[in-house]
Amino acid sequence: MAYAGICGSDLHVLHGEMDGRIRLPAILGHEMSGVIAALGHGVTGWTVGDHVTVMPLDWDGTCAACRAGNNHICHHLNVFGIDSPGALQGLWNVNADHLVALPQNLRLDHAALVEPLAVAVHDVRRAELAAGDRAVVIGGGPIGALIAVVARHAGAEVVVVEVNAQRRQNVADLGFEVLDPATTDHVAWVNDWTDGTGADIVFEVSSAAAAVLGATDLVKTRGTIVIVAIHTQPRPIDLQRVFLRELRILGARVYQRTDFERAVELLTSGLIPADALITRIEPITATAQAFAALETGLAMKVLIDVGSTGPAT
Amino acid sequence: MAYAGICGSDLHVLHGEMDGRIRLPAILGHEMSGVIAALGHGVTGWTVGDHVTVMPLDWDGTCAACRAGNNHICHHLNVFGIDSPGALQGLWNVNADHLVALPQNLRLDHAALVEPLAVAVHDVRRAELAAGDRAVVIGGGPIGALIAVVARHAGAEVVVVEVNAQRRQNVADLGFEVLDPATTDHVAWVNDWTDGTGADIVFEVSSAAAAVLGATDLVKTRGTIVIVAIHTQPRPIDLQRVFLRELRILGARVYQRTDFERAVELLTSGLIPADALITRIEPITATAQAFAALETGLAMKVLIDVGSTGPAT
Repeated sequence: MAYAGICGSDLHVLHGEMDGRIRLPAILGHEMSGVIAALGHGVTGWTVGDHVTVMPLDWDGTCAACRAGNNHICHHLNVFGIDSPGALQGLWNVNADHLVALPQNLRLDHAALVEPLAVAVHDVRRAELAAGDRAVVIGGGPIGALIAVVARHAGAEVVVVEVNAQRRQNVADLGFEVLDPATTDHVAWVNDWTDGTGADIVFEVSSAAAAVLGATDLVKTRGTIVIVAIHTQPRPIDLQRVFLRELRILGARVYQRTDFERAVELLTSGLIPADALITRIEPITATAQAFAALETGLAMKVLIDVGSTGPAT
Repeated sequence: MAYAGICGSDLHVLHGEMDGRIRLPAILGHEMSGVIAALGHGVTGWTVGDHVTVMPLDWDGTCAACRAGNNHICHHLNVFGIDSPGALQGLWNVNADHLVALPQNLRLDHAALVEPLAVAVHDVRRAELAAGDRAVVIGGGPIGALIAVVARHAGAEVVVVEVNAQRRQNVADLGFEVLDPATTDHVAWVNDWTDGTGADIVFEVSSAAAAVLGATDLVKTRGTIVIVAIHTQPRPIDLQRVFLRELRILGARVYQRTDFERAVELLTSGLIPADALITRIEPITATAQAFAALETGLAMKVLIDVGSTGPAT
């Protein structure tokens, strides 16, 4: 194992909010990069020393979702690092089916971003975003920032709405227009920006009830709202607006292999500002500090250098 | 004018819930059939005596929705019979652009169903319903029943969920399976019906908050929920389920000309049980009684015979 990223889902696990899926002792980590150390009997197509990442999903192949071709959202999905042991260990034994090749010229710390970037690629693809679209991303954390980056790369104009000042700075540093809804009437702003039309697509990445209720005012007639964030309780939605404007609301979860491969391509191309997205890297012996840094909500990506046992940064 | 249907929207007007759109004296009626009595100067393509219906929508042609090709949901939509004078008058002067031809062999009372049937055609088309799909219609009033009929004609298997016994009987008389959610666990029923998969499409036609909250439990992974009903306040939606199953929620409003023309075809073909859908026909002099019958919520379609001044039925 080389690097493993930690994310909001890992915090949910830490807080006990996903106890129904966790068996102790748990080995977290579902965002990673590594190098093949050994191959099982009969495994072909791979060589010791290859750089790889793992698409951390396993499915039963028999449920209704799998039978319909949607195995990435299998009804009994096994997410490595949550439902089964993950990447925060020196050596990780996974079935070769889950490997995704990394080019040797992609830095392994950058490659730890493949998994969250694949989420963003999936969200943008699910939205059917096209060049020239105007997109609003509500929530400027790591996934929101990655969605903004992917959407911009696809030719969209993007604005991010974020309540936290540090996160606004993080996203502004990536070259995005960022609105503080506490001081800017962002509905009026988007209306002006789009000449009264409304945004083509709104990505809801904030988990806030107010964001869901307001999203219908940001989007154009026949526009799309993508639900990316976790909402642990039902949220009021303005269905009058959904009806009057024939809006579309889409759920988007994890990724398919094509998203993972596209994420590798994007990172390798150098078009993703990987260094700006990685806030800090801690040795595995400082994993607690890494989680504490993530807990503040102000970091973008925090990585763990799984092979390093040095002091905390 | 021959016949005019009255519907739930007309009741909303009567109750004062749409006062912002009504100017007194108002002439209601947006579902109709008639015969051309006279042509304006320079109107071509029509002949006095032609049977016609009116697609009762006018748009500004300049708003963002119109510019994007969605003039049926123009931001300043003028619905005849609500925003401007409608069909409940002996002679109605409309621009020839709004006429839709009726075959001479389509009965004029049946033709008054074209408008609500066009709503159902639009809803089914917007859902991208395909032959073999399993669809749940929540709400067995006139629009719900018409959606069920159109979906069945398109090759879907359909079940209707309805709380009211008379409405259940009305829909059962059309040959549909109907569930009473008070006595049947309709979620378990749909689950069994679909071998654990869930329905392909759920049409929400009930306006009930509980129906919206429950709809996400009825639909399959990547399935579609169509919001047909008016919801005058925001409704809680299980976004966790929308996310986990990558659901799609679509608003669907009125119709486009293709829906209107398809509705004429369907009625003319005799495949729509028009007689069963028309509960009663009152002379225009008994319009108050017609509204009272509609108010009970137990009638399917109530028509007004605009040319008749006889006694109430």
